[in-house]
Amino acid sequence: MSYKSRRKRKKPIFPEHRTPPGSPPGVLIADPEAQPTTVHVMAYGPAGLVEQDLKDLTELSGLMAAWPVTWINVDGLENLDLIRTLGEMLGLHKLALEDVVNLHQRAKAEDYGSNLFIVTHMVSMEETLQIEQMSLFLGRNFVLTFQYLPGDSLDPVRTRLRGGAGNLRSSGPDYLAYALLDAVLDGYFPVLETLGERLEDMEVNILTEVSPEARNRIHEARRDLLNLRRAVWPQREAFNLIVRDPMPLISPEMRPYFRDTYDHVIQIIDLVETYREFATDLTDLYLSSVSNRMNEIMKVLTIIATIFIPLSFIASLYGMNFNPGASPFNMPELNWTLGYPFALLLMIGTASAMLLYFRHRDWL
Amino acid sequence: MSYKSRRKRKKPIFPEHRTPPGSPPGVLIADPEAQPTTVHVMAYGPAGLVEQDLKDLTELSGLMAAWPVTWINVDGLENLDLIRTLGEMLGLHKLALEDVVNLHQRAKAEDYGSNLFIVTHMVSMEETLQIEQMSLFLGRNFVLTFQYLPGDSLDPVRTRLRGGAGNLRSSGPDYLAYALLDAVLDGYFPVLETLGERLEDMEVNILTEVSPEARNRIHEARRDLLNLRRAVWPQREAFNLIVRDPMPLISPEMRPYFRDTYDHVIQIIDLVETYREFATDLTDLYLSSVSNRMNEIMKVLTIIATIFIPLSFIASLYGMNFNPGASPFNMPELNWTLGYPFALLLMIGTASAMLLYFRHRDWL
Amino acid sequence: MSYKSRRKRKKPIFPEHRTPPGSPPGVLIADPEAQPTTVHVMAYGPAGLVEQDLKDLTELSGLMAAWPVTWINVDGLENLDLIRTLGEMLGLHKLALEDVVNLHQRAKAEDYGSNLFIVTHMVSMEETLQIEQMSLFLGRNFVLTFQYLPGDSLDPVRTRLRGGAGNLRSSGPDYLAYALLDAVLDGYFPVLETLGERLEDMEVNILTEVSPEARNRIHEARRDLLNLRRAVWPQREAFNLIVRDPMPLISPEMRPYFRDTYDHVIQIIDLVETYREFATDLTDLYLSSVSNRMNEIMKVLTIIATIFIPLSFIASLYGMNFNPGASPFNMPELNWTLGYPFALLLMIGTASAMLLYFRHRDWL
Amino acid sequence: MSYKSRRKRKKPIFPEHRTPPGSPPGVLIADPEAQPTTVHVMAYGPAGLVEQDLKDLTELSGLMAAWPVTWINVDGLENLDLIRTLGEMLGLHKLALEDVVNLHQRAKAEDYGSNLFIVTHMVSMEETLQIEQMSLFLGRNFVLTFQYLPGDSLDPVRTRLRGGAGNLRSSGPDYLAYALLDAVLDGYFPVLETLGERLEDMEVNILTEVSPEARNRIHEARRDLLNLRRAVWPQREAFNLIVRDPMPLISPEMRPYFRDTYDHVIQIIDLVETYREFATDLTDLYLSSVSNRMNEIMKVLTIIATIFIPLSFIASLYGMNFNPGASPFNMPELNWTLGYPFALLLMIGTASAMLLYFRHRDWL
Amino acid sequence: MSYKSRRKRKKPIFPEHRTPPGSPPGVLIADPEAQPTTVHVMAYGPAGLVEQDLKDLTELSGLMAAWPVTWINVDGLENLDLIRTLGEMLGLHKLALEDVVNLHQRAKAEDYGSNLFIVTHMVSMEETLQIEQMSLFLGRNFVLTFQYLPGDSLDPVRTRLRGGAGNLRSSGPDYLAYALLDAVLDGYFPVLETLGERLEDMEVNILTEVSPEARNRIHEARRDLLNLRRAVWPQREAFNLIVRDPMPLISPEMRPYFRDTYDHVIQIIDLVETYREFATDLTDLYLSSVSNRMNEIMKVLTIIATIFIPLSFIASLYGMNFNPGASPFNMPELNWTLGYPFALLLMIGTASAMLLYFRHRDWL
Repeated sequence: MSYKSRRKRKKPIFPEHRTPPGSPPGVLIADPEAQPTTVHVMAYGPAGLVEQDLKDLTELSGLMAAWPVTWINVDGLENLDLIRTLGEMLGLHKLALEDVVNLHQRAKAEDYGSNLFIVTHMVSMEETLQIEQMSLFLGRNFVLTFQYLPGDSLDPVRTRLRGGAGNLRSSGPDYLAYALLDAVLDGYFPVLETLGERLEDMEVNILTEVSPEARNRIHEARRDLLNLRRAVWPQREAFNLIVRDPMPLISPEMRPYFRDTYDHVIQIIDLVETYREFATDLTDLYLSSVSNRMNEIMKVLTIIATIFIPLSFIASLYGMNFNPGASPFNMPELNWTLGYPFALLLMIGTASAMLLYFRHRDWL
Repeated sequence: MSYKSRRKRKKPIFPEHRTPPGSPPGVLIADPEAQPTTVHVMAYGPAGLVEQDLKDLTELSGLMAAWPVTWINVDGLENLDLIRTLGEMLGLHKLALEDVVNLHQRAKAEDYGSNLFIVTHMVSMEETLQIEQMSLFLGRNFVLTFQYLPGDSLDPVRTRLRGGAGNLRSSGPDYLAYALLDAVLDGYFPVLETLGERLEDMEVNILTEVSPEARNRIHEARRDLLNLRRAVWPQREAFNLIVRDPMPLISPEMRPYFRDTYDHVIQIIDLVETYREFATDLTDLYLSSVSNRMNEIMKVLTIIATIFIPLSFIASLYGMNFNPGASPFNMPELNWTLGYPFALLLMIGTASAMLLYFRHRDWL
Repeated sequence: MSYKSRRKRKKPIFPEHRTPPGSPPGVLIADPEAQPTTVHVMAYGPAGLVEQDLKDLTELSGLMAAWPVTWINVDGLENLDLIRTLGEMLGLHKLALEDVVNLHQRAKAEDYGSNLFIVTHMVSMEETLQIEQMSLFLGRNFVLTFQYLPGDSLDPVRTRLRGGAGNLRSSGPDYLAYALLDAVLDGYFPVLETLGERLEDMEVNILTEVSPEARNRIHEARRDLLNLRRAVWPQREAFNLIVRDPMPLISPEMRPYFRDTYDHVIQIIDLVETYREFATDLTDLYLSSVSNRMNEIMKVLTIIATIFIPLSFIASLYGMNFNPGASPFNMPELNWTLGYPFALLLMIGTASAMLLYFRHRDWL
Repeated sequence: MSYKSRRKRKKPIFPEHRTPPGSPPGVLIADPEAQPTTVHVMAYGPAGLVEQDLKDLTELSGLMAAWPVTWINVDGLENLDLIRTLGEMLGLHKLALEDVVNLHQRAKAEDYGSNLFIVTHMVSMEETLQIEQMSLFLGRNFVLTFQYLPGDSLDPVRTRLRGGAGNLRSSGPDYLAYALLDAVLDGYFPVLETLGERLEDMEVNILTEVSPEARNRIHEARRDLLNLRRAVWPQREAFNLIVRDPMPLISPEMRPYFRDTYDHVIQIIDLVETYREFATDLTDLYLSSVSNRMNEIMKVLTIIATIFIPLSFIASLYGMNFNPGASPFNMPELNWTLGYPFALLLMIGTASAMLLYFRHRDWL
Repeated sequence: MSYKSRRKRKKPIFPEHRTPPGSPPGVLIADPEAQPTTVHVMAYGPAGLVEQDLKDLTELSGLMAAWPVTWINVDGLENLDLIRTLGEMLGLHKLALEDVVNLHQRAKAEDYGSNLFIVTHMVSMEETLQIEQMSLFLGRNFVLTFQYLPGDSLDPVRTRLRGGAGNLRSSGPDYLAYALLDAVLDGYFPVLETLGERLEDMEVNILTEVSPEARNRIHEARRDLLNLRRAVWPQREAFNLIVRDPMPLISPEMRPYFRDTYDHVIQIIDLVETYREFATDLTDLYLSSVSNRMNEIMKVLTIIATIFIPLSFIASLYGMNFNPGASPFNMPELNWTLGYPFALLLMIGTASAMLLYFRHRDWL
């Protein structure tokens, strides 16, 4: 019961928003469910870091002039004017901006010359799987990220920036972009581990429990894997592009790092596909458990019925009302001294013979 | 019942027409079910727009000479003479014209030098899915489109042309072709959303309802997805060709736009394939729901039967007519003071033992 | 019954013949089931056309010298001497000739320099599907075709040659080869339409009829589609080769025509694969219809049985012979004034309770 | 019964032997089940042919010096010293020699410069399928073949060599290698024909017979096809290599011959895959036949049971012992003049109603 | 019962460890389950071999200076300081070192210029399958291997090094790397043979035994094959890279050896895939055996029930209490002289008719 009610109120796993069919290209159309927009900026260099929530975009130019690298993170896509202004200030292509606002983009990497546009997907799993589009622009001195919802898996990067340890602060925006994308991909592994543990639990349970609920849990896991697969496959292509083609915005020494990220994508795909096959095997196992169990029940019940049917027949036989007084052929057993014991022995004998036959045929 | 009758009168999802086998190439053969042909022209430039229904093709030359871009839209393929004349006026290859009239073409893009020939498919979904071939020729100063049926998903483009907003009027025919193809592809998303919602509804219903009607609805969704898949896969190839190969008729600055269109095709394919997998999962879920439900019924019924079978046997036993008067061994219970209560207790005891055993084996 | 007998006498769909294992290459071995060989020649040019059944191969040289293009069509492969002589006269490679006589070749195109060798398959469907190998040699001034059986789908080409309309007579042998191959491929579409209609009929029937015959019809359709697939897939590769590689025997202006043929092959493959998926869906639908139907029967029957089992028990109970005279506890009901009506009411009550319970559990 | 016993004593289809894990490369380790080694030599040229069983390898040099081409065929792999010596005499790479002795190699072609090393698999089918590795070295003036078991499909080549017809004797070792490989591949066709016939027989039988034996026969055919597939797929790659890359040991005029061999491999793969799909269809057909048949039995039996259950109830009803003497409400029917005929009519009526209902619901 | 308990305490097949999401790249994080680290060094050259357990890394420089090749084997990954120091001493990239400590890497080969980094997986099978990551660095004068657990399949290489036979000691570190990788791959074959034997045993058993345990054994084999597949597929890519790209650290004469290793990977993949298909066939065979067996039981039992139902009806009929004294129509049979024999004959006749009908319909 709790299961059904949970299913009915479920939010979409992939939040969707699209411009109406036939809209002119590059026109931003508001998503009625979009969250309020907040802009958070971290500007830094080897010398230090300033961090602030931006109320007014005009402050941005000052920050970008003063610091080598600026990370502008936009949460919520409600304020289209702000997004449009940001796009103009940083010289972003209007088709790319449209892809930021239209959710349901496949992951991709596009080189627009003055900036590199990357769409990726963040995943999280509390009770249910949630997949959220993150758009990232890498420019010569900035990284700009757009998220549909507040809350993300990028906090470790913020902590590293604030702490100043490692070489994050002393590196360029390409290193920041790498760190962000790597953090996004790192978020897949706990989700996959949760799914993997669920599947292993189901495997143990299927041997002892064959409720329809078990079936639905497997189905839900398959559905989640299908959605993960859809999120992660295009990232392979996107990161492959970054690794393969020389891009002016990514310095050559960053290449091994992006190759490492590409390796992570491959590992995620690998896990997703392995779990998918495993879930298919579980479905088969479940179905054969169900049928094994039902067959067992039916078998025992049918055997009981079959043993009693001949016994009942014998009892009915001697319940017939042929008149022994009318003829010596009419059920003389009824008047035998040992008639009743004879009938009981006949029944016991028949039942024993049936049981022996069933055991002989290996049905018991 | 309503379901069956709806199925029987269904129109083909893909209207088909082919020249008879062995016809010479490039010969146009009338489709007996073709709709009457109407020609609608929109000629425009930065300076303005004229729009008219063309009765006589000779007016066309004037319009094409006067305006930078002319969009000729032909609805209905009955009037082959008109189509042939149009082909000659605009210098179209006769094999391409044959493909316009022969429906059931796969989507494709072919460069004929003086014009680019693109076949695509428009989809719509009212009660049932409808797929319609649209053929498009892009020339140096015109776009020519052929549709099998009146009514299309191109109205947003017409509105934008009439309104004059955006840069549609000030751009060349390649931009118009892009806008038309983009509008065609945009038409897939509402259809896919409808299908997706239907599948999600079915998923919830399967948990509570296992009627054959549910099975047929899943089958119909799979069938629609199969047809959509057949319509959309070739478009991948077609748009890939436009994006990959430099084509003189498409200006370089239009490249990102067509790449965007290509991305839409990939997204559509992605959705279709995801829904197909989801529909397969639903079929499995349906089948296991059916079998779960039947098993549950059979189990309870069989248990009822099995409990009563020994009881009936006991009742039959004491219904035997052995003569207690003939011998003290013949059913003395019949004359016991507590014979009947004894028999009733025996029955209750047997039934209780069976129920306990069933509960012990976890069958209840 | 008629179904079984039809299956037993079925001819092979793909007529087969192979040289015995280990034969030297290029040696022609007679197929014992080969048809008598007849040679039909059509020699033509812009000036006219002569047509004759050739008894003696020596006449051939004259015809070939006199006319720009000669089409030699050989029906039946019994006369190996004739085939060998023809091969020598026209300079054909002996491995190619061996492929003509050995049926069961995959479609292919091989460039032997002085001639181009193409193997393709003609299909026809009267009651059952029939697939026949056609081998075609294209030389500088001739086209030579070999067919296993008389009767083919090339008559429209003959008619066009005789009529002299179009540019068939004024073009070279490459145009003739194209026309013949196109006619062969055109023959697939009616076969596929027949199959498609059969599948659609089955889809409607499955909802009302679940006989094993229906299952066999689906199986037969799948088998036909499997054979069609096997015939048509290699043609993709063969025509791709012709389209992709420049071949001296095919003039550049014929390229779009062969590309058109290639498109037809892709369309045929597309249809075959779509129908195959559809047939798989039908199999699933059939199986779930069977099980739905059986479950429905079993359910109603089991419910009837289950209702009567407690009733019969009650009847048996009051059929026991405990002696009411021996003790006041022994079945006093038998002597009650309303004993019988009481028993009847007990039965009706039990049956009603069972029915209500079944309805409550939604099993009715 | 005969089936089970046959299965239990089955020999491996692919004889296996491997060096122990971690052995140094190129060290030959004896296979305990290897057959005694015999060496048969045929040395020939246009001038003639000598043939002998070689006891002593020293005779080989003389033969190879005297004749243009020498074919050394080694049956049985027990005598590792001999194989090692042969390898040294002919300059074979030790890794290649290891692959000769270690069975379970995939088919492959490796160019070692002075010789070309080809691994292929011979098949035969008497009662069961047997697959045997054949290793072939092609040198400048010799062909060396190794077989695991005596007996092969190369006799037709020997016959042609002895007969001296054709151009086998007058050609080089590359032609001999081609003839041998072609003979090996020719051996697949009769095996596939046998399998194909078995599948067609099964198809007819499944309509009339659903024994578990039928299921096992299909399973065995699938297993054989799986093994054939494993043997033949790698040959595609191997022959493709020979056809694609120019190899100094194969003269250019031999190219079409090897291309022909490659075509045969493709045809074999094609047949194997088609039969595999056909076998899958048969499995489905078998399963649905089983369930159709069982359903039919269950249906008739359940209908019989269901008709008699109400009849038995009526009979039990009038078997109750309510005392008609105690009250006029107690079973007055028992004393009616037509009580018994009334009961019989009630029974007949009930049974007829049930039968009509079943017929109405289309269950009979 | 033993089966379930075994499943519950099972260790992971792939031991996993990952850095927390968002960690900076190249930082090593301890795995809480890592084993204590021990370092074993074998330094050798044509002149001899020294072997020691290293307590202090400073000794390493001396050994590496003194001998041409040094093999450093690290068992257990607990001591991250040691691993880090080792990385600095030998100039390893920090991303590569991170991959050593983070288990769950896909097999791969990466060229870091001064060293080649290869990740592979060792397998072993005692009661259950165990897969363990091995990381290998090949430098100019050293090979460094990291293993998660003590115990490996490299002992044959150690033995060959100690024995000094073969050319292992006189070759460079590339030969050692080859020998180690080859030993790792050789470890797959006994595991696959064990799995293959288990599958063949199951195949025989399925014909005689259909316990749920059999189902679980097949499921376990499929699971093992899925894990093996995941371990072995990426190795294909890794070794392909080594074979295809010229690498300065691998001398050209080592190429055929690595090609041989690549061949082994392909063979392993081939076996894994073949066994996977075989396991799928076994699942199908199991399911159809289960259903065959159940059907057989149900059939016999239902037949027994169906025969006795009419008999019981006849017996009940003559158990009715219609009063023969009240009317001549009321069950006169009860007073017939041969009434009882007549009833018995009626029963025998009915039962025989049913049996004949069942035999006629081929159900017995």
